[in-house]
Amino acid sequence: MTAVTRILPRRLRIFLIVASVLAVVGFYAGPLFSPARAAVDGETQYVLNTFSFLVWGALVMWMCAGFTMLEAGSVRTKNASMICMKNIGLYSIAGLAFFIIGYNLMYVDVSTGGVIGAFRFLYGPGEAEKALIGGDSGAVSAVVEAGYSTMSDWFFQMVFVATTASIVSGAIAERVKMWSFFLFTLLLAAFIYPIVGAWTWGGGWLDKMGFQDFAGSNIVHSVGGWAALAGIMILGPRLGKFRRDGTVRPTPPSNVVLVTLGVFILWFGWFGFNGGSQLALGSALDVTAMSHVLVNTNLAAGAGVVAAMLISRPLLGRMDLFATLNGAIAGLVSITAGPDFVDHYWAIIIGAIGGLICTVGIKLMEKAKLDDVVGAVPAHLFAGIWGTLAVSIVAGGNFGVQLLGVVAIGAFVFAVSYAVWRVLALSMGLRVDANVERLGQDSAELRIEAYPEFVLMPEQDDERE
Amino acid sequence: MTAVTRILPRRLRIFLIVASVLAVVGFYAGPLFSPARAAVDGETQYVLNTFSFLVWGALVMWMCAGFTMLEAGSVRTKNASMICMKNIGLYSIAGLAFFIIGYNLMYVDVSTGGVIGAFRFLYGPGEAEKALIGGDSGAVSAVVEAGYSTMSDWFFQMVFVATTASIVSGAIAERVKMWSFFLFTLLLAAFIYPIVGAWTWGGGWLDKMGFQDFAGSNIVHSVGGWAALAGIMILGPRLGKFRRDGTVRPTPPSNVVLVTLGVFILWFGWFGFNGGSQLALGSALDVTAMSHVLVNTNLAAGAGVVAAMLISRPLLGRMDLFATLNGAIAGLVSITAGPDFVDHYWAIIIGAIGGLICTVGIKLMEKAKLDDVVGAVPAHLFAGIWGTLAVSIVAGGNFGVQLLGVVAIGAFVFAVSYAVWRVLALSMGLRVDANVERLGQDSAELRIEAYPEFVLMPEQDDERE
Amino acid sequence: MTAVTRILPRRLRIFLIVASVLAVVGFYAGPLFSPARAAVDGETQYVLNTFSFLVWGALVMWMCAGFTMLEAGSVRTKNASMICMKNIGLYSIAGLAFFIIGYNLMYVDVSTGGVIGAFRFLYGPGEAEKALIGGDSGAVSAVVEAGYSTMSDWFFQMVFVATTASIVSGAIAERVKMWSFFLFTLLLAAFIYPIVGAWTWGGGWLDKMGFQDFAGSNIVHSVGGWAALAGIMILGPRLGKFRRDGTVRPTPPSNVVLVTLGVFILWFGWFGFNGGSQLALGSALDVTAMSHVLVNTNLAAGAGVVAAMLISRPLLGRMDLFATLNGAIAGLVSITAGPDFVDHYWAIIIGAIGGLICTVGIKLMEKAKLDDVVGAVPAHLFAGIWGTLAVSIVAGGNFGVQLLGVVAIGAFVFAVSYAVWRVLALSMGLRVDANVERLGQDSAELRIEAYPEFVLMPEQDDERE
Repeated sequence: MTAVTRILPRRLRIFLIVASVLAVVGFYAGPLFSPARAAVDGETQYVLNTFSFLVWGALVMWMCAGFTMLEAGSVRTKNASMICMKNIGLYSIAGLAFFIIGYNLMYVDVSTGGVIGAFRFLYGPGEAEKALIGGDSGAVSAVVEAGYSTMSDWFFQMVFVATTASIVSGAIAERVKMWSFFLFTLLLAAFIYPIVGAWTWGGGWLDKMGFQDFAGSNIVHSVGGWAALAGIMILGPRLGKFRRDGTVRPTPPSNVVLVTLGVFILWFGWFGFNGGSQLALGSALDVTAMSHVLVNTNLAAGAGVVAAMLISRPLLGRMDLFATLNGAIAGLVSITAGPDFVDHYWAIIIGAIGGLICTVGIKLMEKAKLDDVVGAVPAHLFAGIWGTLAVSIVAGGNFGVQLLGVVAIGAFVFAVSYAVWRVLALSMGLRVDANVERLGQDSAELRIEAYPEFVLMPEQDDERE
Repeated sequence: MTAVTRILPRRLRIFLIVASVLAVVGFYAGPLFSPARAAVDGETQYVLNTFSFLVWGALVMWMCAGFTMLEAGSVRTKNASMICMKNIGLYSIAGLAFFIIGYNLMYVDVSTGGVIGAFRFLYGPGEAEKALIGGDSGAVSAVVEAGYSTMSDWFFQMVFVATTASIVSGAIAERVKMWSFFLFTLLLAAFIYPIVGAWTWGGGWLDKMGFQDFAGSNIVHSVGGWAALAGIMILGPRLGKFRRDGTVRPTPPSNVVLVTLGVFILWFGWFGFNGGSQLALGSALDVTAMSHVLVNTNLAAGAGVVAAMLISRPLLGRMDLFATLNGAIAGLVSITAGPDFVDHYWAIIIGAIGGLICTVGIKLMEKAKLDDVVGAVPAHLFAGIWGTLAVSIVAGGNFGVQLLGVVAIGAFVFAVSYAVWRVLALSMGLRVDANVERLGQDSAELRIEAYPEFVLMPEQDDERE
Repeated sequence: MTAVTRILPRRLRIFLIVASVLAVVGFYAGPLFSPARAAVDGETQYVLNTFSFLVWGALVMWMCAGFTMLEAGSVRTKNASMICMKNIGLYSIAGLAFFIIGYNLMYVDVSTGGVIGAFRFLYGPGEAEKALIGGDSGAVSAVVEAGYSTMSDWFFQMVFVATTASIVSGAIAERVKMWSFFLFTLLLAAFIYPIVGAWTWGGGWLDKMGFQDFAGSNIVHSVGGWAALAGIMILGPRLGKFRRDGTVRPTPPSNVVLVTLGVFILWFGWFGFNGGSQLALGSALDVTAMSHVLVNTNLAAGAGVVAAMLISRPLLGRMDLFATLNGAIAGLVSITAGPDFVDHYWAIIIGAIGGLICTVGIKLMEKAKLDDVVGAVPAHLFAGIWGTLAVSIVAGGNFGVQLLGVVAIGAFVFAVSYAVWRVLALSMGLRVDANVERLGQDSAELRIEAYPEFVLMPEQDDERE
């Protein structure tokens, strides 16, 4: 080595040797150490992010079955088939409408701080994704760059608009005409929900102001609740629901087990609803946040149940199962705006307050002579507003912006929905004929009874309005 | 540096320096850039591929509950317990039969272009997987090389054969003897389905010709449909279903909500059925294709619902809920042959046509005096044939090969099933005694009524054949 | 090159060149070869491990709906609403109790070979996870080091304690007071289950001795079964269940389809229960084991069904659907102690024996005049003991330790539960008033009937004790 020592300058020599050793050792021994330090690589991130949308999205689709069971069990037997028809129909229509119109309006070309996206028909994958599926493996990097498959995102967003439509269905059950309801669903999924969505998740003006709503306490649940409330007001209560003497005619669920099954489905599906709303899975941060979200989701729902159970006795005069089940939903709705960062004990508090609000809300709706068949307004609208505001209260965020969001979204959705329901009422008609209502939509409209072989109690119709 | 410049040749010097710098910078800074370019590594691919089989496979198993609910709600109440028994039994038997015989026949040692796999008992993991589970970490690379765990693939394929058996169950309900049905299920899962499977997914002669069926429009759904049709023909209609005056006695579902729940379960499970049929998750291509598949699956189902809803009024005389629900299934079956590459708008068209075909098919079956209790033949066989042919129509593939596949598989399955049903009829008997049928299988055979505490309508038996 | 050859020593020259070439080629071409050899990197492992807890955990939560359906269908109609209330309540309470007390007691600071963990309120993520969620990306490595998110583990463990509580619910249905049951649930989830858990999964004395129970044949199912058995003994049978002449009054399920739905839900959820119990997903070993687990789970359940079906005729006098459905559960419980390493054919044998034991157990319970409404003791306790012992029989493990575990856990849980039930009976009362029992808890306690519009058979109350 002595010859070299003299000829090569010291620095270069050392550099070459050290560099070579480092490079070789580093590369070939790297994998031995990498488990403790390497980050998730790009394509794996893409796969995980996309898969998260698909798996959790499928679970959110399942919530539509939950709403169907909840509603079919809540209505009187004579209208249960119509609930089935409306729910299988609304899920189909909402998905098609969101594909044909809605998604573009909500997410495509929303200018920063803007109010609306693109008016354009159909939605589809970008060129790179098409090329990749078509066999061009050179498109991988362009696809991976996006972080997730665009259509997986569409899938996940689509089940959210279906959820929104499902909320409306139950509240106005037993008296709304099927085709009018379907037309409203179409407009809700194609325009109303996407416009509000553009303001927020689409990157529009509310988002720019800092409005926070993680998975849609307000954007999904309050929107559904406002649309339902407008429908309830224009439709009016079911015949005989509010008696002339001011008392309320009890209309207990016709099938309590179905209602319970529905609530369990919703609770289960909510893990997808909130968990998937992390919108990514490809990093330690994402999956840790997702764990946090699922734990908070479960704790809030449990707290909602316990709170509703305890408050129902003094408030409603009995340990009310229906209020308890709605307490679960209200707890879930309440935590949905911020399950990613509130501490776990806060999730319990937020959920419990949600359960209380919902139970009180059921009572208030009756007092206001608003006939909400499944308690959708208390559980989704009232608890949704609470959850949206709670985010700022608990985390010290901007209460004003949250309130602005609640008011602006509420005003828009309520006003437009009210107008649409009104137009429907004046054109094709919104409410079924009184005879149809008495007979039930199942036999009068669908001509298919829900349980044709079972003997049912004759209905007491002594209390007509 | 001047001394070195003179002594070392220029090219070598530059090479050494550049190489060293590249190597060091490349390795140590690599992870910073890698998210944008690195591919999924081998073991991660293995994990993801395998997990996809497990998660989606579990969801497909859930479809068996969907078939059970659909069927239990469709039959008359007096046979609902038997539906439960048949379905829990068929899922168990199909799984055991596919483990003991079927899988080997379908996948193991099928010669290229061949007609059948190995006659060998039991199936199990290869030596490498056994070694790995047994604690030999040296087996990792051999295991990873395979791309996915062999038993995860078995699991996924097993739930498919169970689906095929489920399709048969509903069509021939209310009159088939339980043990004869179980024996047929055994033969279907051990031999009939695996032989057809060997021709196609197993790599046999139809596969070699280029027959395409992504997730089984034909291989699962038409096969189930053909087996059901043969059973229907040999069993004959339920007593009184077709009156002497040529009219059809309506047998509406006894529990519409259960039917609806069943359809929602099937729709939900279909995301696993089609999504998992990508057979891999470990690359951007796979997960992008899977997104494409789920979106198409949902759009086709929605379109099937809307189409069936619209056509049912002119065709069946009312907005028919049962036809609408079957429209969802027909839409799903139709898209199942090619959800991975048809454009999304084509999925809508394919699904809608599937819904139409199914609704027309319900009518045709009645005209042909074929008594299919749940509409399995229209929804699975007719829509399955349509979907299999549609692949070539839409994507410009080989229509002739698709047609050949449909005919060959149909002829084989129908002929063998027909023979098996016939032999069963002649030996242990296929159809229950007329008194058992009138009384219902629940009380006459199982001695357990589905809803023993509920008062049911007395059945009108005035219209016997 | 000749000049260099002379000046540089040969070894150094070769070293530099080879090293440079190796390093550059290795690094830049590495990804091309890596799929065949690279291991899952650390953060990806973390993501996969955590995601496994979340997805499978969500599926286990769904089992609570399964228990609810199974129980609501098994009881007489007059108590079905109370089942719904008890189940939504127990899931909520168990989750909160496990968060506030239980988890710490089971997993935190259990000394090696110890008997109990920390008495400390609330459970939460560690500092590193909090920091990461809070935006400190520097916390990634500390978080990743742990292998999975702590709260995802909490989530998964929480659904297990809820399962345990669910098992108790069904056995003592139709006569237990709601609040007493809820209080027992609270104590079970906060103390009883966590203490046994600390002995085993928490790393306590039984774990140190080598006690094996993969997913809880004993720790979950037998624990639930022992607690149920103690409750059954103190509560006594339902009025009129055992007649004075020694015969048993049949109390068939009031809604067979619900029972069947419940069993399908449980079977589906069990893939999460056993699959997730691998506790990791981030390596080829883990996911291969998980495949093995799911296949064994399914085979054992199927074998349990077939065995129960076959044995029920000679034993119970008919092909008994209720016994068959319980056979599925017993098969699942039996395999749960060791699905990760027994061969697949052994899973069939273990499951079949489980199904036999359960069916015999149903008969034995009746002989012993123990009134278990849903067969929880045969299906969960008897089959759970069998499964726990089978692990050592099949795999040649330590039978003595397994037996010790069964006895020690059984003695502790039975004794404590017995004491708690007794104290509840003496203080707030455990059994409802005889009039409430005759009338049904739904109308007498909850004042909400399960199916208020359906006409039910008048109950024959001619056989009182």
